[in-house]
Formats: sequence, C-alpha cells, structure tokens
Amino acid sequence: MDKKALLEKLHAIDRECRLLERTASLLHWDLETYLPSLGVEERSEQLALLESLHHERFTSLETERLLEELGSTTDNPRGDEKLPELERDYLRRMRMDYDREEKLPLDFVTAAAKAEGVSQAAWVQARRDNNFAAFLPHLENMIDFARKRSLYWGFKNKVYDGLLDIYEPNMGVFEIASVFTPLRERLSSLLKDIAMKPEPDCSFLNDEFSAEVQSKFNMELMKYLGFNTKRGRLDISAHPFTTTLGSNDVRITTRYFPDNFLSSIFSTIHECGHAFYELNIPEEIRLSCLADGASMGVHESQSRLWENVIGRSLPFWEGLFPLLKECIPKRFDNVKAYDFYKAVNLAKPSLIRVEADEVSYCLHIILRFELEQGLFSGAIKTSELPSIWRAKMKEYLGIIPDTDSEGVLQDVHWSHGSFGYFPSYALGNLYGLQFFGKLKADISSFEDLVTKGDFLPIHDWLRDNIHKWGRRLAPGELLKKVTGEELSIDPFLNYIKEKYSKIYGI
Amino acid sequence: MDKKALLEKLHAIDRECRLLERTASLLHWDLETYLPSLGVEERSEQLALLESLHHERFTSLETERLLEELGSTTDNPRGDEKLPELERDYLRRMRMDYDREEKLPLDFVTAAAKAEGVSQAAWVQARRDNNFAAFLPHLENMIDFARKRSLYWGFKNKVYDGLLDIYEPNMGVFEIASVFTPLRERLSSLLKDIAMKPEPDCSFLNDEFSAEVQSKFNMELMKYLGFNTKRGRLDISAHPFTTTLGSNDVRITTRYFPDNFLSSIFSTIHECGHAFYELNIPEEIRLSCLADGASMGVHESQSRLWENVIGRSLPFWEGLFPLLKECIPKRFDNVKAYDFYKAVNLAKPSLIRVEADEVSYCLHIILRFELEQGLFSGAIKTSELPSIWRAKMKEYLGIIPDTDSEGVLQDVHWSHGSFGYFPSYALGNLYGLQFFGKLKADISSFEDLVTKGDFLPIHDWLRDNIHKWGRRLAPGELLKKVTGEELSIDPFLNYIKEKYSKIYGI
Repeated sequence: MDKKALLEKLHAIDRECRLLERTASLLHWDLETYLPSLGVEERSEQLALLESLHHERFTSLETERLLEELGSTTDNPRGDEKLPELERDYLRRMRMDYDREEKLPLDFVTAAAKAEGVSQAAWVQARRDNNFAAFLPHLENMIDFARKRSLYWGFKNKVYDGLLDIYEPNMGVFEIASVFTPLRERLSSLLKDIAMKPEPDCSFLNDEFSAEVQSKFNMELMKYLGFNTKRGRLDISAHPFTTTLGSNDVRITTRYFPDNFLSSIFSTIHECGHAFYELNIPEEIRLSCLADGASMGVHESQSRLWENVIGRSLPFWEGLFPLLKECIPKRFDNVKAYDFYKAVNLAKPSLIRVEADEVSYCLHIILRFELEQGLFSGAIKTSELPSIWRAKMKEYLGIIPDTDSEGVLQDVHWSHGSFGYFPSYALGNLYGLQFFGKLKADISSFEDLVTKGDFLPIHDWLRDNIHKWGRRLAPGELLKKVTGEELSIDPFLNYIKEKYSKIYGI
Repeated sequence: MDKKALLEKLHAIDRECRLLERTASLLHWDLETYLPSLGVEERSEQLALLESLHHERFTSLETERLLEELGSTTDNPRGDEKLPELERDYLRRMRMDYDREEKLPLDFVTAAAKAEGVSQAAWVQARRDNNFAAFLPHLENMIDFARKRSLYWGFKNKVYDGLLDIYEPNMGVFEIASVFTPLRERLSSLLKDIAMKPEPDCSFLNDEFSAEVQSKFNMELMKYLGFNTKRGRLDISAHPFTTTLGSNDVRITTRYFPDNFLSSIFSTIHECGHAFYELNIPEEIRLSCLADGASMGVHESQSRLWENVIGRSLPFWEGLFPLLKECIPKRFDNVKAYDFYKAVNLAKPSLIRVEADEVSYCLHIILRFELEQGLFSGAIKTSELPSIWRAKMKEYLGIIPDTDSEGVLQDVHWSHGSFGYFPSYALGNLYGLQFFGKLKADISSFEDLVTKGDFLPIHDWLRDNIHKWGRRLAPGELLKKVTGEELSIDPFLNYIKEKYSKIYGI
C-alpha cells in the first residue's frame, strides 16, 4: 500500500476515536449541566463504556501496524522523511499517544473510569458534608490508580513525573519546582506589601445581583468578546469549564452567585479564552489527534490572558463599562470605570483558588503541587492532607480555612484522579505573559483596540501565532517559535509588580 | 458452559448495546434542544458512528452463538424450555431483534444513518422555504433506503408490511386497513355533525401568553401529574418528544407559542404519558432489550390516554383549574372550569396533525397511511404527493392547505425514513380506550381521583397492568392479557361519540 493510503487509514481510525471522545464529552457536559440527579449512576456506566471502546479502537494492532509502515517508531516518531511536515508532526503525536495508551490494559482503563465516577460522586457528598474522612478511601483509591498509571507508562525520575507529563509534556518535578520556588517567594513578598495598603472601595459590588441579571450580562459579554454563538453556547454548572463537542460546538459554563457578580463575569471571560483556542483549530487538523491545545498550560495561558491581562485591564473596563450600565440600569450610576477597574483587581488572600486574585493565585497552585509531590514521594500520608493544607495556607497566604470544604476538599481534580494537572494553571500565567510580550510588540495599538472592544486583530494574532498549531508543537517548542525564549517567570512577575504597584501605590 | 453463564454473557452484550443506544439518544436530544446551529454536521457523524458500533456489537457472531447455545432459533425463539419465563421472553425478543438487525449489512446501516442526517437537515430547510421540490430527491432517497431495508428483512405480502412491522409487530397493511376504513367513515360523519353546531367560546384563550408564563405552568403541571423531576426533565424543542437516556433519566420536551397556550399544555401531558411508561419499566429488565414499550402503538396509547381521556376530561380541569389561576393570575377570573373544558375540546378540522382535536386526529393519520401505502405499492409517485395530499385533506377534513409547509412537509418522520410509523398514532387511540375500559372497571373512583389530582392509583394500575411488561408481550398479547379482547374500534368510537355529543348537544 502506498503512504497516502496508509495515512488515510490511520486518519480514519483517529477520526473515529475523536468522535468517540467528543461523544463522551457530551455525556460529561450533560452530567455537569442538565442531568437529573438520579441519572448519575447509569451515566458513569455510559462513560466507562465509551472509554473502553475508545481504548480498544485506538490501541488496536492496526494502529501499530500503520504507524510502523509509515516509519513511525518510538525512537523516530515522525516517521518517513519524505512525508509532508504536517503529516510528520501528526505521526509524532499519534505515536506518543499510542505508546502511552497501549501500555494500559483494557481492564485497568475500564476499572479506573468506573472508580472515577464513584469517587467524584463521593467527593460531591463529602464536600457538602465537610467530611474528609468519608472521601479518604476514594482519594486513596484514586492515588493508587494514578500511581499504577505512571508505573505502566514509565517516568523520568519520580512517579509524579509520569503524571505531570500528561498535562505538560517534558515538564517534571525538577523543572516545575525550579520555577515555582522563586515564584512563591516573590509573590508572597508582594502580597505582604499590598496588605499594608488600604483596600480599594468595592462597596458598589456588595449588592445582590439576580441570576437573570447576571445571565443577561454574561450573554452580552461573550458576544462582546467575539464568541460566535452559532459555534457554541454558555450554560450553568457548579464549576465553570470549557468543553469541545465538535469543531463547531465548543461550550462554556459559568455560575451565578447573587452576592458575587464578579465571579460569573471573570469565569465567562476565562472560559471564552479556552473556547477561542478550540474554535481556532484549523480545518486541516480537525477531528485528528492534533486538534487540541499544545498542553494544559498553554491552554491556560489563553484563558488567563483573556481573563486577567485583557479582562482585568483599565482599557477593557473603559470600553465595557457602558454596556454593563446599559444591561443593569441604575446600580452603577455613581461608579466610574476606574473605580470598577480597581475593584476587580482587589488583591487579598482568600481560601478558594478559583476566586483568587492574580497575585495570590499561583500560591494556591504551588501549595497543591507540593502536596501532590509529597503524596507520590510518600513524604505525605493521605490522612495528613487536611492539617498540612492548613499549615501551608497559613505560611503562604496567612489565612486558615475553618472547614475542609473550604480547604482540601474544594477542588474536583483529585476526586477523578487528575493528579499533576494543577501546575498547568500557574504555568499558564507564565506562558501567557511571555506570549503577551510578543503580542504587544506586534500590535502597537493594543490598548486602543481593547478600549474600543475591537478584538479582531487580537483574535487574529492569537490564531496565527498560537492556535493554528494545535498540538503540532510541544509547549516549549511553541514558546520558542513565538517568543524566541525559554520558560521564564520574569514577564509575569514584571507585569504583576507594575500593575499592582500602580493600583496600590507601592 | 452452563445456561446461567451463557445468559450472563448475552445480557452483557445486550447491556452494552442499550448503553450505546442511550448515548445516541443523548446526541439526538441535544441536537433537538441545545446544539449550536453549526454543530449539526459533526453531530450526524457521531450518530452514524454510534449506530455502526451498535450494529457491529449486536450482530457479532458471539450473539448468534449464545442464542443458539441457549436453544433460541428463528423457529423456536424462546429457547430452552427449562429456563425461567422471563428469560424465555427475553430470548424471544433478542432473537427477533437479532434476526432483523443481522440481515442489514454494516455498510448499509452506516450509509442510511448518514443520509438520514442530511435528509432531515434538507427537510428543515425545505419546510422553512415551502419548497417541496428541494426536499424531493432526499425523500426519494429515504424511500429507497426504506424499501431496501424491507427487502433485506423480508415481508408478509407487501414491501410496506415489512416497515409497519417495525413499529407495530404483526400488523400489516391488511390488518391496519381493516380497522382504518370503518374508523375513517365514522369519524368523518361525526365531524360533519359537529360542524353544524355552534363552536364553544374560546375567546379567553385568544390572549398572548409569554414563554415564561407557559414554562412556569408546564413545570407545575408535570409535577401535578406525578413526574419525579429527579428522574427526568422538561426542555424546549421545535417538535415535542420523549426520550430515554437512562433508567432514571427520561426527558420530555414541549414548545411555547405565545398565541397558543393549549399547545404546550397538551404536549406536556402527552409526553408525560410516554415518560410514565418508560419510568415504570421494572428493575429486572432495565438496560435490556425488554426495557421499552410493547410497540409504538401501545406507547401512544399511554400518551393519548393521559392527554385526552384524562387531560381533556371535565374532572381533570375541575381539579387543575385553581392551579392554572394561581400560576397565571387575573387572566381567567371570569372563566369557569366547565368553559375551559369545552374550549380544550373544540373539534374543528385543521391543517396540522399535532394540533388536531380528538375527533379529526385519526383522519390525519389515515391520510398518511394511505399515502405511504401508495408510495410503496407504486400507485403514487413521489412528485404527486403534494397534490394527492390536498385532495385527501379536502375529502376527509374539508380543508386544503395553502402551502406544502402546512401540508405534505409538516411532519419530520419521512425526512429520516420512518415510514410505517404514523399508523401507531391512531392505533394508540384504539388500544388506549380498550385499556381504559378495564382501568375504569377496576378503579371505580376514577373520576373522583382525577378531580382531586390524586393520580397515584392510576399510575399504579398502569404500571401493574401495562408498563411492567415492557417488551415481554407483543401488542396483541398485552391487549388480550389486560382486556381479554382483540383490537377493536368500538371503545374509542363510543368514547368519542358520547363525549362530543354531550359537549355539542348532538
């Protein structure tokens, strides 16, 4: 068979696998948004079935045979040198995904999927009841599955390296710790400086805003940012997320707390950032293993760039404030855009990661990274987590949660075994500001455009420099291509220091 | 291997197939409710993939081997006589489903699924544009697929028999025509008598009712009828439907026309009737091929019993009217329950089947049955459909649609190849009134219960006499078991004549 026919066969298998993944994503999306409460049990069974079908199809002997015939091996994943660059990038990803997936036995995949469903349900209950002990056996089970997964795959130095690698290829404990340690020190120190200054006035946000009012504004907001609602939607879920159900079907969610209007606004902007990445994946790699972000960290660079660098900037609120006043008459009559800008940049240690400000956010992540590291090295026992959590919160943020629900039980990730995921959130901040440096150099009128709400040139730049690559490049390769640099904490720290020094008069 | 182990293996395959079917149902439900408009194309591809996976799994050699080892053959589908009755009923259904499904080549199944998606989209457009010619090639394609399907299966006398049998086992053209012909004559005659009498006053319904107001009332209504919202939900779609996504996840939809409040009320009651059937499938047959209604006709007997026999009765509105007045203050201050009862029973020929009254409804169905019969016998050419539609509307109902959108293009069924489905709707009316005769004989306080809104004894009776059987019995067997009778048009006609003679003073 000629190479073209072989590639076509491989693409067909890959396409089926992606269709199955996206069907599973719909099952998940519905679970988080509309599923009747008693429907959860069978939904878990549906998800486990799709996962096993995907595994069987993807790791079939046919996939292996096609990869080999195309010259793609573990040592030479890009295959035959005569193939077009796109196909060689494609083969590299397929080989890496195949090598990872085929090491897991089908029984293991199915058992893990089922246990994750049960564990997540137990977590929801335990968090509601503030009962860490009830969640403990499930957490241990999840750690056990994660450890086995890493052992199946093999890892550089530590078990935890194998898990980190899923979300951020080529970043292990050593690499991450070497950026997180200085980051922690400098953010902690800045947070202490800020604490000495008076807080901005946020009293105009202390009002109640009904879900209807918030929903109306958030719908306008997503359109204002340039989200084409023929290609996606905004719904409500307990935890905001973005999911891709099709090349033209990318959905985001938010939530409406009557006493915290900002929460919905910034989670909508954040998820729009993820959605723009997914919606800009080019036609030529759609429904293939390349149709995704370069890594979770790079994905997060997009969401946090929109949420913070754009969404929490003064030009942004100068542009958006009239729309806010129009959607919600009277409430903000005596407020100026600059006051609003200061209020949305309140920097103050708080208990919940997803509501944290830009300065303290990374500290929440670093705490979780250190705990995960300890769990997998054996230095921390699972039962000790609540007390170590409190101790680290005190040390890094100066506050201690009253309950485990506001502490170690707050995040969903561990409940479904996603260990190694958290660091991506902080890496996203770093990548984001490195990309942003280049973006601002290329688009000199950036601030004017943001004030006008004219985001098209920004969308174009992000698409042409970042999104269009999908998963063709590893995160480090992409960073190098766009900025010419290696990973660095400086652009992020400089941005934070400059912005907050001004706001707080430090 | 012993019989028990063989059965377990067969049940496991069946369970997987049902899980796949229900996953596909979610893809469909989402397509009709929340899918962004540009997501349709990939959604069709996802549906076609699931359909082919289902087909492959269900028609695997392993299924055939297990059925044979359990003694189930085409001639002796119930298998080994020593097995429990439930398992023998189960084997009968599995064998029938297997025999039907394995006759279809995988290529055919996949091609049909893809073509159906395209055809349905073309129909939506054609109906919007009132352009039958644009839909014609797709319709011909769908007829061609249906014809081939029937040829693959084999049929009693006519190609159309093979299609009718999918929805109503053991009912062919001859059996259906022999009840439809007298039904048509007697309903047409009654409709003429009614037309001579003055119409009831419906002026209080001419008001506009916003979607919010209607939605609020419909949510209350489903709970009033006894729908447990932990096991299902109500959403909005262009065409009301019920779908089962899990044993504890049965969803219904309705639609809100500001100028037709009754439309949403009666479609909600109708779909609740379907949902109650699905929700009452007993534990022991869940997620098996028995977990469904006996036939589409029997399913429709439940929806139309709730919608019409209960939902359009005087006791029902005497009970519900206070709730309606509470939900929608002031609008009905000067209206009495009896006036409302008369208004919801307006009998008057109209163009659209789903909005038709109880007297004329079956005439819409009989028209479609006659057209389908002609299409598959060759007596009617596809291009002649619009003109024959108009001629038959004139003959049976005395009115003619101005446009094809209100005529031959109004229903979705043909667009996705569901020929042979329509007759179930009329059969449902007949079954429903036969069942109802027994229900009223068993529950002497029926009218009191309905007035009080105490539906529990009615739910129990329907569950214990009809729903609990799932697909264990064929429609005729179920009818015999419940009523001791064969299919008859008399109970339905007697009910209609008695009710409408009173309302119209004939």
